[in-house]
Amino acid sequence: MTATLLSCGINPDKSILFQQSRVSQHVELCWVLGSLTTMARLGHLPQFKEKSARLKEVPLGIFIYPVLQAADILLYKGTHVPVGEDQLQHLQLAQHLARTFNNRFGETFPVPKAIIGKDSIGRLKSLRDPLKKMSKSDADPRSRIELTDSSEAILDKCKKAITDFTSAVTFDPRERPGIANLITIHSMLSGINPEDICKESAHLDTGKYKLVVAKVVEDKLSPIREKICDLMSRPQYLEDVLEEGAEKASSIAELTWQDVKTKIGFKLS
Amino acid sequence: MTATLLSCGINPDKSILFQQSRVSQHVELCWVLGSLTTMARLGHLPQFKEKSARLKEVPLGIFIYPVLQAADILLYKGTHVPVGEDQLQHLQLAQHLARTFNNRFGETFPVPKAIIGKDSIGRLKSLRDPLKKMSKSDADPRSRIELTDSSEAILDKCKKAITDFTSAVTFDPRERPGIANLITIHSMLSGINPEDICKESAHLDTGKYKLVVAKVVEDKLSPIREKICDLMSRPQYLEDVLEEGAEKASSIAELTWQDVKTKIGFKLS
Repeated sequence: MTATLLSCGINPDKSILFQQSRVSQHVELCWVLGSLTTMARLGHLPQFKEKSARLKEVPLGIFIYPVLQAADILLYKGTHVPVGEDQLQHLQLAQHLARTFNNRFGETFPVPKAIIGKDSIGRLKSLRDPLKKMSKSDADPRSRIELTDSSEAILDKCKKAITDFTSAVTFDPRERPGIANLITIHSMLSGINPEDICKESAHLDTGKYKLVVAKVVEDKLSPIREKICDLMSRPQYLEDVLEEGAEKASSIAELTWQDVKTKIGFKLS
Repeated sequence: MTATLLSCGINPDKSILFQQSRVSQHVELCWVLGSLTTMARLGHLPQFKEKSARLKEVPLGIFIYPVLQAADILLYKGTHVPVGEDQLQHLQLAQHLARTFNNRFGETFPVPKAIIGKDSIGRLKSLRDPLKKMSKSDADPRSRIELTDSSEAILDKCKKAITDFTSAVTFDPRERPGIANLITIHSMLSGINPEDICKESAHLDTGKYKLVVAKVVEDKLSPIREKICDLMSRPQYLEDVLEEGAEKASSIAELTWQDVKTKIGFKLS
């Protein structure tokens, strides 16, 4: 994971990259926030309802996870959080907890605002069923392209991507979701808009066009794949990045935590 | 609280006295154990049922508190835990979590055994209603004697302790719970058994006997009260005791936590 994030361009000199389990203040603040949360509120969160409905035995972790997410945000006094639509209610819990804490113990946390992405990432579809989202948890690995896929795998997945029986390359997400999905992938990776892609590919049938998409994907992902391989062979470097990240994160987290402890009376001020 | 424990005889050179909030590993291990706990199991605990039934809004803290208690025990690889009857089910949860963790990640925690007190502490009754337990959470402070009560308060509470209309001093907890409760207090503080107390006090009526009890209580508590006053005037000493305790506790807790992290894969071994 660390190798992948670095390979995709996260710069550890600009961004603090760390493992949450190395910064104990996340669970410490989570405990405090948990005492300000009611069971009813957590039980009504749609993600919990959906996940717990599928399980016979519901682990406590699923129930209290949104409180930990709130702690993850508030610990760094986050003001803006990029979230998917499905996470909006969890962010609302974090906003509620920030307000509750502030009202009870004095102004401490900014109320974090949601940034809801408007780009097409959320719109990428499964290569096996263009009506479903492309998802890393789909049981069929051919439904998605992974960053570590080999050139052969990329070519194979693009060639076998489900399209329809029309051979022209046209962008019509509603009527022709399969080919439109490939054009969206092409567009996002190249920065060319879908209309221009269709013009460029007017002479191709969908079978040939899939090879074009495969090449665009391969050209974009192969440097990332090589970087991942390279970094994976340097575990000490990855460990150093994570350790340094944990130190930076801890020093910010500790300031918040000491403030919280004083305010709630865990500590003599 | 620290001053009180030290005044009652806890020796910080023999016992590790610390504030749990200063040892972050409690909540860290709690999080891990929480992921091994099901919601149904916590929902069935009698203390939760009883407490939550009384509340309109149930705070999450009440629900997950038994998991933190389990972490408090397992973090130090506790083998024996003194508990009241009402805490037995919580200890059973700790035993269950120790077994579950051991089965899943390899032998790590001893399964802690309960030590159930057989002395009379659990049998002390309210001075206002000898059918109820003496409790620090009773709304009426006259129902209990506090360690910091003044001589006057002790005398007053003993004199006003509810007894019956028989004036003889006899020990009959069933038929005469009020006077029997005073004799129990007298017996526990003096080490004299109830029968001998009754013989010694055969010439007294209950009114006079209450003065004897008040003196026994005062003689036992006044040195403790003085010690508490003295320690309260030395906050730096108390802080030093707690800080040293937290350091000792942390060093044990950290060994367990590193072991747990390695076993569950939070850490490269």
